[in-house]
Order: sequence, then C-alpha cells, then structure tokens
Amino acid sequence: MTDFDAVWINARIATMQANQAPYGVIEQGALASKDGYIVWLGPEAQLPAYEAAKTRVYDVQGQWLLPGLIDCHTHLVYGGSRANEFEMRLQGASYQAIAQAGGGIRSTVKATREASAEALFELAKARVNTLMQQGVTRLEIKSGYGLDLASERKMLQVARQLAQHFPLHIHTTFLGAHALPPEFDDADAYMDYLCHTMLPTLHQEGLVDAVDVFCEGIGFSVAQSKRLFQCAQQLGLPVKAHAEQLSNLGGTALVAEFAGLSADHIEFLDEAGVKAMAQAGTVAVLLPGAYYFLKETQLPPIELLRQYQVPMAVATDLNPGTSPLCNLPLMLNMACTLFALTPEEALLGVTRHAAKALGVDDAGMLAVGLRADFGCYTMVQPAELAYQQGVNPLTQLVIGGKTIPF
Amino acid sequence: MTDFDAVWINARIATMQANQAPYGVIEQGALASKDGYIVWLGPEAQLPAYEAAKTRVYDVQGQWLLPGLIDCHTHLVYGGSRANEFEMRLQGASYQAIAQAGGGIRSTVKATREASAEALFELAKARVNTLMQQGVTRLEIKSGYGLDLASERKMLQVARQLAQHFPLHIHTTFLGAHALPPEFDDADAYMDYLCHTMLPTLHQEGLVDAVDVFCEGIGFSVAQSKRLFQCAQQLGLPVKAHAEQLSNLGGTALVAEFAGLSADHIEFLDEAGVKAMAQAGTVAVLLPGAYYFLKETQLPPIELLRQYQVPMAVATDLNPGTSPLCNLPLMLNMACTLFALTPEEALLGVTRHAAKALGVDDAGMLAVGLRADFGCYTMVQPAELAYQQGVNPLTQLVIGGKTIPF
Ligand SMILES: [Zn+2]
Ligand SMILES: [Zn+2]
Repeated sequence: MTDFDAVWINARIATMQANQAPYGVIEQGALASKDGYIVWLGPEAQLPAYEAAKTRVYDVQGQWLLPGLIDCHTHLVYGGSRANEFEMRLQGASYQAIAQAGGGIRSTVKATREASAEALFELAKARVNTLMQQGVTRLEIKSGYGLDLASERKMLQVARQLAQHFPLHIHTTFLGAHALPPEFDDADAYMDYLCHTMLPTLHQEGLVDAVDVFCEGIGFSVAQSKRLFQCAQQLGLPVKAHAEQLSNLGGTALVAEFAGLSADHIEFLDEAGVKAMAQAGTVAVLLPGAYYFLKETQLPPIELLRQYQVPMAVATDLNPGTSPLCNLPLMLNMACTLFALTPEEALLGVTRHAAKALGVDDAGMLAVGLRADFGCYTMVQPAELAYQQGVNPLTQLVIGGKTIPF
Repeated sequence: MTDFDAVWINARIATMQANQAPYGVIEQGALASKDGYIVWLGPEAQLPAYEAAKTRVYDVQGQWLLPGLIDCHTHLVYGGSRANEFEMRLQGASYQAIAQAGGGIRSTVKATREASAEALFELAKARVNTLMQQGVTRLEIKSGYGLDLASERKMLQVARQLAQHFPLHIHTTFLGAHALPPEFDDADAYMDYLCHTMLPTLHQEGLVDAVDVFCEGIGFSVAQSKRLFQCAQQLGLPVKAHAEQLSNLGGTALVAEFAGLSADHIEFLDEAGVKAMAQAGTVAVLLPGAYYFLKETQLPPIELLRQYQVPMAVATDLNPGTSPLCNLPLMLNMACTLFALTPEEALLGVTRHAAKALGVDDAGMLAVGLRADFGCYTMVQPAELAYQQGVNPLTQLVIGGKTIPF
C-alpha cells in the first residue's frame, strides 16, 4: 500500500507541463500528496493502491485541477487611495492640478509613510485574501512607497507578516528605486543611499528576495539601474526591472546582462531586447491591467516574444496609481482581449512562467516532486478562467496538500 | 416616538438625488425604514426620537450607504459556454471556421433549448448571486436564446423563478427578435410569428415586462422593429432596442418615436438620434463590457448625450457571446476608463438612471417614499466603487429594509 496524505480522484488535470497536450491535460486523472508535495499524478486507472481509511480522499466529480495561480508582480502593500485623483482626472483636471492637490505617486508615499504597520497589514490582508479566493497560492510584493529606510522596512516587514498570516507563499522585492523621494533632488545621490545603506541593511535583515528598479525617463537611467544591479549582485540577490513601459531605454537588455528574473511591462521593447531576454532566460512579465487603466496604445512585442520563445508571465501590477485591479483572472481576460494571447498562453503566464519569473522551480505546474498547490474549478475547460469573469469557478484551494478555507 | 422597523446611523449617504451636492451626499446621516420603504433620511442630528428597543439599529461607523445597484441590461439566463469559441478565435480561427464548429449565437440557442429549466435556473442562480454580492438589488433579464415559443417561455419562467428565489427585483424583457432562428429563413415571416403568436401568448402568461429588439443590419430592420413595437404598444408593453451598435440604422429614433424606455449600445448614434432620445425621455444604456470584449473603437456620443441631458445608464450586457462579464463594478470602471464618464455619472448609471431605464420610479435613489434597497460600503468616497476593482467594499446589503445574508 502506498502512503498518501490525500488523494484527489475523478479529476481533469491541467498540469501546465511543457511538451504535452494543450495545458498538459490528463483526463480522468488523479493526484496524490504527501508532506505537502505531489507524490503521484496520472490517469486514475493507474493510481497505486492506498489505505483509504488513513487518507483524505476528494472525489472532485470531473472538476478541473489547475496549478495554484501565481501573481508575480504586485505592489499590494500601500496606504491611502487614489480614487480622488481618478475622479479629478475624469472631471477634466490637468496633471498639474492633480499634482498640486497632492496626487500622483507622492500621495501614496505620503500615505504609506504615515500609516502604521498594523494599518498597512489590514489593508494588504484584504487584497491578499481577495487574490486567494481567485485561486492564487503565491505572489510577489514590492516595496517602493516608503523610499526611506524605515518606511521601506515597514513595507517589507508587512509582506513577511502576510506570509506568516496566510498559508500562501510570498516573495518580497526591494523597489527603493521606484521614484525619487521628496528628500532628494539628485537621483545619483539617492542611488548612493540605496546601494550603500538601504539595500544592504534590509538584505541583512532578511527582508529582500529580489531587487527591482523603475528604469524609465521619469524613473532611473540605465546607468543608475546598473549600479543598483551591481550592488544586488554583490549581495547575491536576483534582479528585475520595470522596463520599456513608456520608451525603449535599454532597461531590458540590462536585466538580461545580469541574467535577471524578469523584465516587466516592455511595451516598447525592440527585437534586440527580445533576443537578449531569450539568451539570458529572462521572463517577460506582461501587465495588461496597467495598459488598460492608462489607456496605452503601444502593444508589447508579443509576436517577437513568441518567435524567440521568451516565456511570458501575466500579473496584476496591483497598485493604487496605474492598476487598482486586484483581480488575476481579469488579467487573464485582458491578456487575451487586449494583447491577443491565447487562453493557454495566459494561463501559462500565471502558472509555469510566473514561477520562473520568481525564480521558483517547485511550483507553477502539477508534477511529481512539486508542491501540492492547486485549485479545483467547476468549469467546462481551462480557457473558461480567462473567458468568463465574475462567477467564481473555484471550489477548493489547496496549498501544501492542505485544503484552505476561503 | 416615531415607529421605525430599522435605523442606520453614523452613515455617509450618497442619495444620488438630483439637484444636490455631488452624489447627493448627506454627511453624518441616518436612514430609517418601515414596511420596506425609506421613511426618514437626513442628518442624524435631526433624526426623530424612536423606541430603540423595538427597532433594529445599525451603527455603520462612518461607512457609505449607496442605493442598491441596478443592472438594467442582461442576458443572464443561458445554457452552454462560449469559451471554446473564445479560444478558437484567439488561436487564429476564422469566423467561418468558428461558425462551422457550431459557434456564434446559434450555439447558445442550441444549448439553451436543450437545457432543462432546472439546469438553466442553476446556472443563472450563480450569476444572480454574484451580482448580489456586488451590491445589485435589481436587474433585468432578457429572453432571446430560445427563439421558439417553448424555449422563450422557459427562459422567462426561469427569470420569474429567480425573482421568487432571490429577494432582489427582476424585470423580464422579451427579446424573441434577437436573431433569426434556424427554422426561419425569412425575417418578415419570423416577425409575423413573433407578433401574432409568441409575444401575445407570453404576455398573456404574465411573463413579459418589456419588449426588446436587435435592430441592426445583421439583426432586424427598422421596419421590422416598428411592427414589433406596434404589437407591443397594443399590448401596453414598453419597448427598448439594441440599436446603433454597429451602424447608424435609425433604431434609436424608432425607440424614441414609441417613447421607449431605452436605446442600448448606441456607439454609432448621431446628433439627431440623441435629440430624439432627449425629447422622448429615453435612457441611453451604455455597455462598456461589450465594447471592451469586441475591441470596438467607435465610442458612444457621450458629449452629445451630456449636452442634450439624456440620462446615461451603465449595464453589464452579461451574455456568453460579447460580454461574459458578470461584474457590475467592473462596468463602472470601464465606463470611466473607456468611455471617460466621471465616477458620479457611472454611479448614476447603475442607480437613478438605470431605474429610469426600467421604468421604475421607487428605486435608484435614497429618498423618503422610495424602497429601502441599499448597500453599505467600507470606502473613502463613492468614486472608489468605480476605481478599485477586486476587493469587495460591500459589508451589508439591504433589500426592502431587510439585511440580506451573502
Ligand atoms: Zn509595477
Ligand atoms: Zn444585449
């Protein structure tokens, strides 16, 4: 008798494994877990004998099992709301008037600095909870609304606290290089502070899993970003960037040069940049929510990314300024509707490719040896998750082999 | 002592009344209900004395009360899924190939005809439930996937059953003139059947609250629509139309000629049509979900609608072919982001103006004498509902003065 903790039977399984049928589907399948990992997966007819009395057995009656969804790019710890700015803009206020009224990223920095860790935690908790109810089992959280040591620390500590509070996996990213804080008027001087003080300190405190930069004309230059990446490299931290969102500056090539995890946004990326990503194994993180919310018109180079086989991830970019959209299935729909991804590409973008964007190799697919993180969905076919929005098809969420109440 | 059933205190109230402050806001307000209606509303300091022991008292601690949301245009009773078609299209299949694979509206007609009333009810129940959780207290449901007497009856009966099952208010609309059924190849002959048999019969059975038509080159002509409206008029039924979605055909002017409730979609409407609506008191129902999902580029004439003071409603158009988006708050966001409505206009579109689109005069606002249908929201300002998506700010839903568990 094989020793399982739990078995799911009568399942249709979208394993999302490569080199398989579409979605890596196993029909009439079964999945077994032990100690938090998948220990058996395949056609139910071949499931080894197990002691049913000692095993939790879930007959899912033909429902679909999909890998736990992964949101690999969020800014979900923040204070304040930008609804006021949203309203002013739609009432015809100029950007200048909005800035004068305290709008823009500085308003979020102010609100985040002023908020207690407890208040930030409560706000973030509601967001994480919402994502979990959508089937998310792993997500990334960036700092970047503190922009001073104490406030960046507070954000990252809240992210670590969320990881304690929830069963899902949370990756932290240091994004001190998100914008110039009001205390600095020289980006180079701020970069000195980031490289010599903030990043090493926060890394020392165990708060940083990766390093990100907003590499853009209105953010930090390629040269400044490179200094940050060098510093990250010395600390042994992987890098990524917000790159090529508003112009083709070269941030993506820089990420590739450092064998970085991902280049995110990349609407303006050219063929050379795509090639560099392919060679470096860097993931393209597509953020259709920000594209939608900002009414952008420049599409990311999807055809080139396909041609060079750059893995494409899809994420919410959840943030109060440019993507206040705490809804990962909606991003699947937008990736299809706005970026013309196929539903399978979109789903890979929140599973296998999103795991790669986080440097994780034991999640993002359903396979023996990987974590038993998955959702059970009542739907006709996997494409349904990208297609229909609103009615939640998730009936069971499993993390580490355990069913999560939600 | 005044006799109330229930009182909500410590509230910020967006009454959505006209000729008031933005959103008709009452700060530090209170609302009292009796026998399902609002009997008192105003600044809490002026609330008359009442017997607290005999009254349900809700201290909402500064949360917002908004009128119950109204989704005035849905096709939410249907069988089958069009996820397959969605996927084929994104994989590059031609419309012809999709049609050959049984796609398009005919696939929904086939699935809806084949489904039992029980099966349709279960599917629709999940959709209505989802909308209620978003704060919807009233919605419209169209027939139009049966296209024969028995199947149209089945759809409308399911809609009536939903109204029995749920506390919310449901309006039925007969949309037999949605498409030509496979049994007919002559639209005039089908219109005969609609006018002489289906509509009178279903009206007789008490299943029809209003009559709708898809007035379009690929649907029914203005002349055919006019015959249907004449028939509706003889039966005393109000009319509305899917009009000017793909071309400026004149359906809207026809609706206005019959003093119809609403003209819906209207992307291609011209100034004369807008003028006609204004004179007739016809509501413009904007459907940004379909605009988004179909990647349309022709915007409805928002400026003209404002200029002529035509009330604008906003709805989901929930249907499997062109708007599989069971999410009314998302439509608020899309109305703002894609159609540049202000958040206040968008919110009016799912409250006061949506009530008008359904011919209802005791809902859509919070005012003495109107139904006590409202939601209680934890948010900073009403614009938040259009701005942030995903985290549900609704904490309490009240219909007819009663708190609805959800
Ligand atoms: Zn971002
Ligand atoms: Zn419609």
